[in-house]
Amino acid sequence: MRLKTESSLNSKIITYDNINPLIKKVEYAVRGELAIQAERIKEQLKKEENLGFDAVVNCNIGNPQQLTQRPITFFRQVSSLTEYPELLSPENRSQVEKLFPPDAIEHAQTLLKQIGSVGAYSHSQGIYYIRKNVSKFIEERDGYPSDPNNIFLTQGASSGVQNVLHLIISHPNVGIMIPIPQYPLYSATISLFDANAVHYYLNEENNWALDIDQLNSSLAEGRAKGYEVRALVIINPGNPTGQCLTEQNMREIIEFCHKERIVLLADEVYQANIYQPKEYPFHSFKKVLRSMDSKYDQFELFSFHSISKGMVGECGRRGGYYECTGIDQKVIDQLYKISSVSLCPNVQGQIMVDLMVNPPKPGDPSYELYQKEMDEIYKSLIRRSRKLCDVFNSMENMECNDAQGSMYLFPRIHLPEKAIEAALKDGKQPDEFYCLAMLNATGICVVPGSGFGQKENSWHLRSTFLPPEELFDVICSRLEKFHKEFLKKYR
Amino acid sequence: MRLKTESSLNSKIITYDNINPLIKKVEYAVRGELAIQAERIKEQLKKEENLGFDAVVNCNIGNPQQLTQRPITFFRQVSSLTEYPELLSPENRSQVEKLFPPDAIEHAQTLLKQIGSVGAYSHSQGIYYIRKNVSKFIEERDGYPSDPNNIFLTQGASSGVQNVLHLIISHPNVGIMIPIPQYPLYSATISLFDANAVHYYLNEENNWALDIDQLNSSLAEGRAKGYEVRALVIINPGNPTGQCLTEQNMREIIEFCHKERIVLLADEVYQANIYQPKEYPFHSFKKVLRSMDSKYDQFELFSFHSISKGMVGECGRRGGYYECTGIDQKVIDQLYKISSVSLCPNVQGQIMVDLMVNPPKPGDPSYELYQKEMDEIYKSLIRRSRKLCDVFNSMENMECNDAQGSMYLFPRIHLPEKAIEAALKDGKQPDEFYCLAMLNATGICVVPGSGFGQKENSWHLRSTFLPPEELFDVICSRLEKFHKEFLKKYR
Repeated sequence: MRLKTESSLNSKIITYDNINPLIKKVEYAVRGELAIQAERIKEQLKKEENLGFDAVVNCNIGNPQQLTQRPITFFRQVSSLTEYPELLSPENRSQVEKLFPPDAIEHAQTLLKQIGSVGAYSHSQGIYYIRKNVSKFIEERDGYPSDPNNIFLTQGASSGVQNVLHLIISHPNVGIMIPIPQYPLYSATISLFDANAVHYYLNEENNWALDIDQLNSSLAEGRAKGYEVRALVIINPGNPTGQCLTEQNMREIIEFCHKERIVLLADEVYQANIYQPKEYPFHSFKKVLRSMDSKYDQFELFSFHSISKGMVGECGRRGGYYECTGIDQKVIDQLYKISSVSLCPNVQGQIMVDLMVNPPKPGDPSYELYQKEMDEIYKSLIRRSRKLCDVFNSMENMECNDAQGSMYLFPRIHLPEKAIEAALKDGKQPDEFYCLAMLNATGICVVPGSGFGQKENSWHLRSTFLPPEELFDVICSRLEKFHKEFLKKYR
Repeated sequence: MRLKTESSLNSKIITYDNINPLIKKVEYAVRGELAIQAERIKEQLKKEENLGFDAVVNCNIGNPQQLTQRPITFFRQVSSLTEYPELLSPENRSQVEKLFPPDAIEHAQTLLKQIGSVGAYSHSQGIYYIRKNVSKFIEERDGYPSDPNNIFLTQGASSGVQNVLHLIISHPNVGIMIPIPQYPLYSATISLFDANAVHYYLNEENNWALDIDQLNSSLAEGRAKGYEVRALVIINPGNPTGQCLTEQNMREIIEFCHKERIVLLADEVYQANIYQPKEYPFHSFKKVLRSMDSKYDQFELFSFHSISKGMVGECGRRGGYYECTGIDQKVIDQLYKISSVSLCPNVQGQIMVDLMVNPPKPGDPSYELYQKEMDEIYKSLIRRSRKLCDVFNSMENMECNDAQGSMYLFPRIHLPEKAIEAALKDGKQPDEFYCLAMLNATGICVVPGSGFGQKENSWHLRSTFLPPEELFDVICSRLEKFHKEFLKKYR
């Protein structure tokens, strides 16, 4: 038996050195060093330190309501009523009718009748009534049937993606194909569940298009490393890259998966953020799949959607869903079991999914306001995306593709040699170095391209275009001033 | 190159046989076969089939509001106002003041000032203002300092437990000590993250007490199997067993962990469900630890709490928190990173945590109603727990310990040989067989003891005592009738 001294008993049992190594390996740049420095600056500003600017502008994360985007009135009216059902009682009715339109009252009553209380656990897969509405939404969007038994409501798309990847990753030699650049949820989840990311590169020169040749060579590389490549992740519209896939391209992707026996994960959370709808409309993979030859009838697809994006922008609520297409029932049963360990997705998130897929219809009392609010946000997003894109393109050593969709621009920066040297000396990636300098000089927080992956020796940043429109000119001129000075310093 | 025929291309890629084996291994009885059969019966009742009863009574899960427990009025007033901040605008003020008390309006305004919008992502660890209120609550409860930087807000206690276990489980030979019987979240999470449950048995003969000898022999057994035993889970008050630990016992547990270099996970989600407060009060492990000798200053403890239980019962909202005591900052940083991959706990869940820890105070306009509602639920829970316990104890071949705490009774059933034979013939655990027969005969859904673990050849069931008090007599007499007939049939 070892003799234990008091000092050995007092050293920590759990230390950085002995925790789960998979967790240590995870990288998550969207909330990483830059975000932490931004918090520090906010504290300094609270203490009224003079930093040359008066607020941090968080362009590092797609969080519209943090940047004062107003929620959709009807949605919040309904959720407010479901929180406090006393408002629906006969004695309060006359007061409440002065504050809430009749269709909000009716929608809340319908939901409460189905749900009972928003404080009760629901079915682990989500409330059946809401899943039926999701299926109707999908049927109307695509023109093909959808079954509520194949829908899982989730706490944001992220938890759905994590459950599906956890299920598919059956041993440490599994490969999952992900785009580069990619949203780091994917690389983080793949690390966490001990699989291997197999990268395919999007083509920046062709507006971040997805070339099938790239899929083929990436798959060949993954297989050469001995990986069993089981799934392909497509983010459409792209994050951080903003491109929208063409129908033709999507057919090729489905053919590729079919031929190579790979399951498709379609991250379609930005499906409502489409800024050039004539040239680059959104097509769901489900629709494209169902429009193809019957030999694809058994094709296996998971499609993800969320209340966090679009014009809804209700990120803090954590709501979303995924649809299983062609997935074996026994596999769905296992997904259900995993969901049941977390008991259920939060009910207010589920209610917002219902509202997103089942909003006011023409003729309803709230329709006009709903439509006006959606339109205003939408048109403003288009204007802001173009303005910021133009500013990036007007800068020396910077080039930026249009946002066809999503909430982000991903400009490329050609950094001077001296800046790269200074960064490496500082132990930082060159684009991280640039973004930190930007944050410290302007209060504008973006994410370095290295957090998403990029071709070697190319440097980028991801910025949302979500700050309020009235601040846009100030933000853009601050960016321009910083960029000039940065180039001057390191030229 | 393999030649692929169309039929091989059309077989499923993901099947039960090739998914993650850890997921397949997970068992989760609370939402298992019984719960699924209960759903089937509900569908039959909707079709007005005559089953001899008119509703399913879900005693299988601690879901108070599903069983018509009313939410706390003040809490819902505040959450309703935060959903629709327009209600707080000057033009609506006079209407709103007729519907909401001034302290609810003020609380909502304070929260919104801190949060911005409930639709925005918050800090991944939870809103700092709310974490400060959690720390104050802990300080007032225990009389010892608490630091908001060591608090993580979570989506229910479950997600906190999962993150902490995921972190601690660093290799497949890790052992985690859990009670038998236990809440299956623990066994499920341990399976999922590929560690090993090391069982210690609670002493049914002594009101489910925890004997330190049991911990020692269980640890020795775990180590003999080659496990690195890293953590001990204590559920206090017990689930499913309802016991409350004495302070003396808790000190011994802390000494045991200290000596054996094991981290303590204290599941204290039932801390407000204390039914014999004089004889069996609740003590938090944090308080007991801090009252001990300074040699325990570095002791490592995670303590979990939730909005789902107590008199709050807001399960569907998914809110909770955990406090890290004595945990290394670098380890906390890794927990933060893991939380950030899921972005943030849902904000309405966080708001309910705030309300739970920061309710109306004496003198506030809402205090009296708040106190009355809490008291009524509390007293009714005591009455219902005693009534159901008495009924179980009055039944032949059944014995049941008092509920000192939590929401459950866990009676032991001495099943006749013939029933055990019939069960095994049917491929079922004997207690599962009994519970299924009960469900089919009465509509009352409970969970078999085998879902929680029990001593070999002893059989139990777990039942909540949450059905509405006015239904209690009917439920009890249905139970008695079923039990008599079951015994008669299999005697």
